[in-house]
Amino acid sequence: MDIKPSGINKDIVGKVVKCSGKLIHSVSTPRANLFWISDGLGKIKCVEFSSSAFNFKKGSMLNVVGLAQEENNEFILKVKGISECPKEELPDLEKAYETNISQSIRCLPEFLVESEALVRMQEEFVKAGEAIKRAVFEFRPVVIKHHADCDGYSGAIALERSIKKKVLDFHQDESSAWFYIKRSPMQTPFYDISDAIIDLGVILDEMDKYGRSLPLLVIVDNGSSKQDIDALKLFAANEVETIVIDHHIPAKSASGYTASSYSISHINPCTAGSDSNITAGMLSVELANIIGMEEKKSTIVLAALSGISDKSSGKEFEQYLKLAEESGFSRERLKGLAKVADFFSFNNRRFESRSLVEGLFGKGEYMQEHLIRILLPIVERKEKARLESLAHTCRIQQIGKDKGIVVASADIDKSTITGTFPLIGKSVGLLFDHLKEKYEKLLVAGIGKSMITVRMKGISKDINDFCGMLAKEMSYANIEGGGHPSAGSIKFIPSEKDKVFKRLLEWAEE
Amino acid sequence: MDIKPSGINKDIVGKVVKCSGKLIHSVSTPRANLFWISDGLGKIKCVEFSSSAFNFKKGSMLNVVGLAQEENNEFILKVKGISECPKEELPDLEKAYETNISQSIRCLPEFLVESEALVRMQEEFVKAGEAIKRAVFEFRPVVIKHHADCDGYSGAIALERSIKKKVLDFHQDESSAWFYIKRSPMQTPFYDISDAIIDLGVILDEMDKYGRSLPLLVIVDNGSSKQDIDALKLFAANEVETIVIDHHIPAKSASGYTASSYSISHINPCTAGSDSNITAGMLSVELANIIGMEEKKSTIVLAALSGISDKSSGKEFEQYLKLAEESGFSRERLKGLAKVADFFSFNNRRFESRSLVEGLFGKGEYMQEHLIRILLPIVERKEKARLESLAHTCRIQQIGKDKGIVVASADIDKSTITGTFPLIGKSVGLLFDHLKEKYEKLLVAGIGKSMITVRMKGISKDINDFCGMLAKEMSYANIEGGGHPSAGSIKFIPSEKDKVFKRLLEWAEE
Amino acid sequence: MDIKPSGINKDIVGKVVKCSGKLIHSVSTPRANLFWISDGLGKIKCVEFSSSAFNFKKGSMLNVVGLAQEENNEFILKVKGISECPKEELPDLEKAYETNISQSIRCLPEFLVESEALVRMQEEFVKAGEAIKRAVFEFRPVVIKHHADCDGYSGAIALERSIKKKVLDFHQDESSAWFYIKRSPMQTPFYDISDAIIDLGVILDEMDKYGRSLPLLVIVDNGSSKQDIDALKLFAANEVETIVIDHHIPAKSASGYTASSYSISHINPCTAGSDSNITAGMLSVELANIIGMEEKKSTIVLAALSGISDKSSGKEFEQYLKLAEESGFSRERLKGLAKVADFFSFNNRRFESRSLVEGLFGKGEYMQEHLIRILLPIVERKEKARLESLAHTCRIQQIGKDKGIVVASADIDKSTITGTFPLIGKSVGLLFDHLKEKYEKLLVAGIGKSMITVRMKGISKDINDFCGMLAKEMSYANIEGGGHPSAGSIKFIPSEKDKVFKRLLEWAEE
Repeated sequence: MDIKPSGINKDIVGKVVKCSGKLIHSVSTPRANLFWISDGLGKIKCVEFSSSAFNFKKGSMLNVVGLAQEENNEFILKVKGISECPKEELPDLEKAYETNISQSIRCLPEFLVESEALVRMQEEFVKAGEAIKRAVFEFRPVVIKHHADCDGYSGAIALERSIKKKVLDFHQDESSAWFYIKRSPMQTPFYDISDAIIDLGVILDEMDKYGRSLPLLVIVDNGSSKQDIDALKLFAANEVETIVIDHHIPAKSASGYTASSYSISHINPCTAGSDSNITAGMLSVELANIIGMEEKKSTIVLAALSGISDKSSGKEFEQYLKLAEESGFSRERLKGLAKVADFFSFNNRRFESRSLVEGLFGKGEYMQEHLIRILLPIVERKEKARLESLAHTCRIQQIGKDKGIVVASADIDKSTITGTFPLIGKSVGLLFDHLKEKYEKLLVAGIGKSMITVRMKGISKDINDFCGMLAKEMSYANIEGGGHPSAGSIKFIPSEKDKVFKRLLEWAEE
Repeated sequence: MDIKPSGINKDIVGKVVKCSGKLIHSVSTPRANLFWISDGLGKIKCVEFSSSAFNFKKGSMLNVVGLAQEENNEFILKVKGISECPKEELPDLEKAYETNISQSIRCLPEFLVESEALVRMQEEFVKAGEAIKRAVFEFRPVVIKHHADCDGYSGAIALERSIKKKVLDFHQDESSAWFYIKRSPMQTPFYDISDAIIDLGVILDEMDKYGRSLPLLVIVDNGSSKQDIDALKLFAANEVETIVIDHHIPAKSASGYTASSYSISHINPCTAGSDSNITAGMLSVELANIIGMEEKKSTIVLAALSGISDKSSGKEFEQYLKLAEESGFSRERLKGLAKVADFFSFNNRRFESRSLVEGLFGKGEYMQEHLIRILLPIVERKEKARLESLAHTCRIQQIGKDKGIVVASADIDKSTITGTFPLIGKSVGLLFDHLKEKYEKLLVAGIGKSMITVRMKGISKDINDFCGMLAKEMSYANIEGGGHPSAGSIKFIPSEKDKVFKRLLEWAEE
Repeated sequence: MDIKPSGINKDIVGKVVKCSGKLIHSVSTPRANLFWISDGLGKIKCVEFSSSAFNFKKGSMLNVVGLAQEENNEFILKVKGISECPKEELPDLEKAYETNISQSIRCLPEFLVESEALVRMQEEFVKAGEAIKRAVFEFRPVVIKHHADCDGYSGAIALERSIKKKVLDFHQDESSAWFYIKRSPMQTPFYDISDAIIDLGVILDEMDKYGRSLPLLVIVDNGSSKQDIDALKLFAANEVETIVIDHHIPAKSASGYTASSYSISHINPCTAGSDSNITAGMLSVELANIIGMEEKKSTIVLAALSGISDKSSGKEFEQYLKLAEESGFSRERLKGLAKVADFFSFNNRRFESRSLVEGLFGKGEYMQEHLIRILLPIVERKEKARLESLAHTCRIQQIGKDKGIVVASADIDKSTITGTFPLIGKSVGLLFDHLKEKYEKLLVAGIGKSMITVRMKGISKDINDFCGMLAKEMSYANIEGGGHPSAGSIKFIPSEKDKVFKRLLEWAEE
């Protein structure tokens, strides 16, 4: 009797059947080899009692003869014989598998809000969604690497929920969620080559040590920019597939956006005529929706949350805000949550802390409330103290034509205790928010040992241009940096601090 | 035939019995559900061969019918049927369980030394001891978090020994000591909110991933002070019970000592009319004794050891010293051990290093001696070098009426290599000890980038007052700190270093 | 029927036999005790179904009666009885075991190149090789600790390959390579006492927790110098055997080289009339060859690679270069690989990353090429930028008789961003290489907050002498350091920076 992996059912239990399919996973124990074959629609677990090694390669097409049984609420085949399918049948089998799996993983480009930019990226969304579903289908782990800020967390959690649901549906086993999904925050606003080297090392060792498949890497709120490209290259050269979901300014060359060459899907609104106002959190919520959204009420809110935390504006943001409001999240509540999420992220460092993060981002009824109640007062106390320090120590000067631009500069090393919350970017933001009502044209600079963080208002220039100009002018000074046009930072060797600041003011008042 | 979980014995092996009890723990494997029921006096392991999920909630009262067997020197029930006890029986069953377990975990307030302060805290001791025993009885892990200095280690080890004995007695399995007890040093002199967030994340993930119960958290030599309260709140809001054993100045409000509101037991001599001379090590040795002291000879010594290392005085300390002497530990030997323990702690960072720590704190015959022989000369070499640096570079001035107060101030960033042993606190202590014989009134200050560490003699003022005063006077400067009245530290933003030092001298000479 | 552990074969399967041998390993599970006995030539696995504890001590001589069976391609004994051999037989049995195992682990002092120094060290090589083979034979893990630079990695990988082969041959089980070998990089150029304390803690806990044996510790490219000795002492006192393979200047006292007293083999060319031109990588490749070289083509290259990276010269290096060339590795290709290895090591920090490291050091066909292709351009970009910064900011002065010595000094804290690649030593090397063609007599100094790194040319003095002299002259300044005669560093407390540099110049121009 011939059956298909997806066709097994109660009626054949107790019978010896023949079943063909693609080998998608195998595990060996001292007494038995366990393996799974699939026709692209469903899989069946096969158990071969044997102490000899299992020598078939993942991806082969196998004919298995075995006794159908039911065990732990699951149909299995007790194997009596295995052989590779004859070569001449392979093309047809492969084609059938591919037709089936394409159907199983199909994603439709439907979005939660109206947006030309999203529609322009719909192909990338579909590619990403289908790649993720395929990975789950083929026992490949999905690793979500995300920027450790509120936007990165929001996007990662939305995706984690959707992928977790797919994993649990596929494996029918609670513990699979710990084997086939991993989420890991990155503290830099780019995928540092050092992190990439360490992550690749761990990935390859897990493959060799436990026989795992290479994972699919989903990079959230990082991955597009110039500083990310080396990491992407490293993964590509070692056959680790990546998906990039980012809204930072993407690296670009004559042949197009660089990240697109090294990842299987590159979702970034800056590649679709929009800008960073569509956050990684929004993009991830949309992708999660395309894959299949879980815990809809608390997940949909994450799009607006990420926009609040990244100071978005624009029509997409407005629509997400409205969706959040429908779920009971006012702008005020989101602001509080965003602050707590940033504080959490600062303290939690590189840990996954899956359950706590899930709670913070709205799973269950109470944990989010408890965390806000306890942590928000701490954040507000620390922000108030920081603002007071900066306001007290910063230097105010007026530059430009008619002294029209107000410059507030704070020596970060002198006015804050190294490494304490909030970090330099948020600190400069606090001072900026404090001053921005008062002045038409404003430049706030947080000056560190080897970095100046800048926020501007009313000065129609792009900090990325300044970085580019300075890098040429002072090639010896290791100038790096950039960011958003009026909020970014410049790195340099410490000896050049005064010169860089002087040039910054000259550039601003030009 | 009806039996009780605590009543099973050889005679019923081979018989089918009915047994009622509270479900205290369960584990599911692919082929069987293992669970334990208890009547508060004893437990029995039940094995249900089944591939369906185990759906009873921890804490339910169950009726189990099963075949009594003996396996691996343990009685078990091979389950034939399980049902929840009828609702109408629950109040009586619960009451009986509670009566029984109260008896099983009973602790008596007996102390090793005579002390009114200890007697005044006896209720807290009993609550702590009984909570720990109850946790063991109900398969809850006990996590000991302790300050990573000699006092914190001493207390933690004393408790670890007692709890380990209870765990081994209860589980009759060597490996249980690795599952149901964990000890983890904290490098800050308070439970940092960041550590608390990370610890809570790990706790919740272990619960979700491995089905563990929430642990009981025992905090040693930290937990009482103002800077600890946010951590306590975080655990309380997430239903993690804490016990605080501390001797730092406790945070206080109109409604009482703050830590008492967030922990199930708060043991601190400052709440009982005494002071920090009764160390966390002494308190923990007493609690260990109440629970049931293990390795008495080497454990009792830890009380005196902690006093030596924290420079205690007072009648309790004298009594502990005498007890240590009776175990063969002279004051001189304790001093050497305290130095080695501090050096070990500095180098061992956050690692548990259970066996090595046990050896260092006196388990077995030789390891402590070996470690002292090898490490003490290193410590003494490093202390000598540090003192020489500080004595060479420090500035001596005389202030106050008739220039009666000698001030020795060392610029720590200039006179020591960052991060090397001994750290700032101990370094300032070395300079202080070197000078204190010479001068009647002495203030030694180690001045760092954003912290001044102070030791005083003959100046009857309280550094905590100075911190409070300065915090009001310079609200922009992030003033924090405190400690013991004449040994503590003040933190501030770096720009205010000179001003804070100036104000310190003015305050001292007033 | 009496058989020997090494004598079991197909013919006795199904028979009950008596077998004597030394107990070399045991593991207990809830249902069975597994243990292995050996006659020094071969081992046999014994399975005792029993729920009582296994009470024989490792190293005992046992008589086992059991049924011979074949299971998972392995012969085993199903135990029917165990007893300790009678005391009177022990001396003969021990002697026979020792005779056999000596034969099993025999190593011959054969070297890949002609070198008097190697020949002079042949006894140490043989001792090291035999100790490693014995450890494998007795189920003891081998832990390779190595300096995290290209030399340290090269040596460690060569040894890891040889040892892995022995482990796999012995255990016939792929996963054994993860249990019985561990490799771990050290970031300091010596075995820091803090690392030693943490490593010892982990070792002892693994022993207690999992019943592992104490490992054999092989220290590569560290271990000989003054700063390593405390770590060696610590291990020796706790019965952890060490082997030291190093080429740094070894600590020495009246009674000989200090490391030799605390390790079972101390291989260092400076103890054999040669110098540091024979790198740890070369020594390890030789030792790997003595144990039995694996992947000969890619392993033999590592000797030359380490020489390139450590700027070796001399006849041994020339011969290794030639061997590398025969394997297809030109000097140019080795230079590129050395740079990539250093960059990798900087980024990979303390991670083992076994598979990635294996690939980088030449296992398989493509990974090394891919990694060079992606990482070398990054390294070269960063080196170029660093050199430009240093060349721009460094101060040039001329000192000595007729101003004949050129001194280039760079303030590292000002001219580089803390913690970025390349670190201070390599950075100073870049500046040195840039200037060395121009000047006959050259001293390049990278001046940090508490360390000066020096490279000299044409100045026939030894930096170690300067350190020694200064340590006496400025005993308060915590002077430490040294290195190679014309490339090393001096550490001091920050306040003395200017004075140390002034004295350095005076010393150089004397």
